[in-house]
Amino acid sequence: VGGAVRRFGQLINVKPDRIDEYERLHADPWPEVLDQIRRSNIRNYSIYRHADLLFAYFEYIGQDFAADMTAMAADPVIQEWWARTDAMQDPFPERTPGDWWLTIPEIFHTD
Amino acid sequence: VGGAVRRFGQLINVKPDRIDEYERLHADPWPEVLDQIRRSNIRNYSIYRHADLLFAYFEYIGQDFAADMTAMAADPVIQEWWARTDAMQDPFPERTPGDWWLTIPEIFHTD
Repeated sequence: VGGAVRRFGQLINVKPDRIDEYERLHADPWPEVLDQIRRSNIRNYSIYRHADLLFAYFEYIGQDFAADMTAMAADPVIQEWWARTDAMQDPFPERTPGDWWLTIPEIFHTD
Repeated sequence: VGGAVRRFGQLINVKPDRIDEYERLHADPWPEVLDQIRRSNIRNYSIYRHADLLFAYFEYIGQDFAADMTAMAADPVIQEWWARTDAMQDPFPERTPGDWWLTIPEIFHTD
C-alpha cells in the first residue's frame, strides 16, 4: 500500500521439443511455487508464448527486490521447480550475469 | 468493479531504422491517445522492446471488447497516431485478419 510498483518484462526461449511439457507444468503449477512468488512480493505474473519465445510480465510490490529474489532462490521447492524449467529453456546470452530470463526495457506505459 | 479482467499479450516488429523514432513517440505520447485508451477500457498498458521485437501487455476491464475497439478505431486522433506508428512497424503475417498486432496465448498466470 502506497509503494511504487515496478513492472518487469522478460524473455527466454523454450526448447521446441519441450513446449508441451512446459505448458502442462505451468497450467497446473505447484501451490508452493505460487506461495513463494507471493511471499517474494511478485504480483500479476503472466507468461505468454509465441513459437519458442516466452514473454513474462510481472509486478514487484516490495521494497527490496534483491532480498526477495534471494529468498525465492533459497526456497527448496522453487529450486526443484527451476531445475525442471531451466532444463526446458534456452536463455538469451545477453542476459544480466546471474539472471536466467533476459529483462527488457519498457518503452511505453499508461495506467 | 466486479468485472473480470481480460489480459492480452501481443507482438509486433518495429522497423530497425525506426526504433529511435518509435521510442521517442512513446516516451511522450499524445494525451488524446491515452484518453481514448482509457475510454476504451484498457488499463495497465505497457510495451517492451528487445531488438526489433515489441511486446505489449494490457488489461481490458470493459464488457464489450469489440465495441470498445471499434470506438478506438473511429477516433481521429487514434487514426493519426496509428498512421504514424503503423509505418514504423512490420506486423506478423499470422495475426488474426483485421488485427495489427499478433495476440499470443497466455500459458501461465498468478495474481
